[in-house]
Amino acid sequence: MPTAEDAELPLTAWTVLGVLSFPGERSGYDIKSWADRSLRFFYWSPALSQVYRELRRLEELGFATSTLAPQDELRNKRLYRITDAGRAALTRWAGRTPDSPPVMKHGVMLRVWLGHLLGPDELRAVLTDHIEWALGMARDAAALEASAHRQLLWPYPELALRWSWRFYESEAELARQLLSDVDELEAARGHSPGGSET
Amino acid sequence: MPTAEDAELPLTAWTVLGVLSFPGERSGYDIKSWADRSLRFFYWSPALSQVYRELRRLEELGFATSTLAPQDELRNKRLYRITDAGRAALTRWAGRTPDSPPVMKHGVMLRVWLGHLLGPDELRAVLTDHIEWALGMARDAAALEASAHRQLLWPYPELALRWSWRFYESEAELARQLLSDVDELEAARGHSPGGSET
Repeated sequence: MPTAEDAELPLTAWTVLGVLSFPGERSGYDIKSWADRSLRFFYWSPALSQVYRELRRLEELGFATSTLAPQDELRNKRLYRITDAGRAALTRWAGRTPDSPPVMKHGVMLRVWLGHLLGPDELRAVLTDHIEWALGMARDAAALEASAHRQLLWPYPELALRWSWRFYESEAELARQLLSDVDELEAARGHSPGGSET
Repeated sequence: MPTAEDAELPLTAWTVLGVLSFPGERSGYDIKSWADRSLRFFYWSPALSQVYRELRRLEELGFATSTLAPQDELRNKRLYRITDAGRAALTRWAGRTPDSPPVMKHGVMLRVWLGHLLGPDELRAVLTDHIEWALGMARDAAALEASAHRQLLWPYPELALRWSWRFYESEAELARQLLSDVDELEAARGHSPGGSET
């Protein structure tokens, strides 16, 4: 039964609840670490304060509960666990077609779009840096996928990591094609690669 | 000469200033329309209020100026134009390596990651919808590129649109590969495609 609350939660809340849907209980810090390690390939790395804000919200909605456990001899930490209501809401959410398509904020493509302001060498440097970055992301995701595969624990996160390294390899390939488009454009305008606009 | 102000502007401000870097003067509404038409493929579609907020900020910084022009017999509209200082700052910004990599919030991949909550049929439906969406985006970007090419006006926005249709075609192909990964996973677990978890 979908409820009004379901629709109004931000993606970040569903993501935090998603981490809690895997067996076990976790602190806010554990959730943040998980996100930094693997969700960053296709979603985001939240601030720790954002994770805690969503945990409080989920607890108020009855989607999560928490207990205090000793962290060391001086301090306690709060451990969160998903409730049946939370799991039901998350399952409904996951089964719905996403309300919004993937959001992309691609600073590199913004710079290509502004190519009239840059010399071709500057544009090539931006693209070359981007290729390096994308290949690094692809390597990181592939290494994580291999480690997930050895543990044979989480088949769907493993599929998401496999998609991730393919995505970043493809991102590098798309940037290589663009680099050669830039060369062609400059050649057509009578600039040789390595030349400048001025 | 980079200034402190340069570093602190959000991407949205640079994007609005970027639209103004093309010849002519434009209203906030014109900028919003441009963004909705073509920037959405690799950046975002801002709210009109966000565009106006950034225009005010750019004007305070001396990066843009505005004049009032009659919109109809009752109302004026404000038209914005980039200043030399604005063009210099934007050019410095565009030539710097992006401070942050592309941001992605991929609700579809979040759902794949949560595949343990969904039956395989639900997951396939999410992926199939995503393929349709990506192919639609690819078609829209290709049509816009063709129209930009006929006008021979903006070579770099045209390159950005070419990248865009390749990107969304690749997005569809990555989702197809994932669909077949899901089938393999389910087959390995003894479910046939079309079967259910329960």
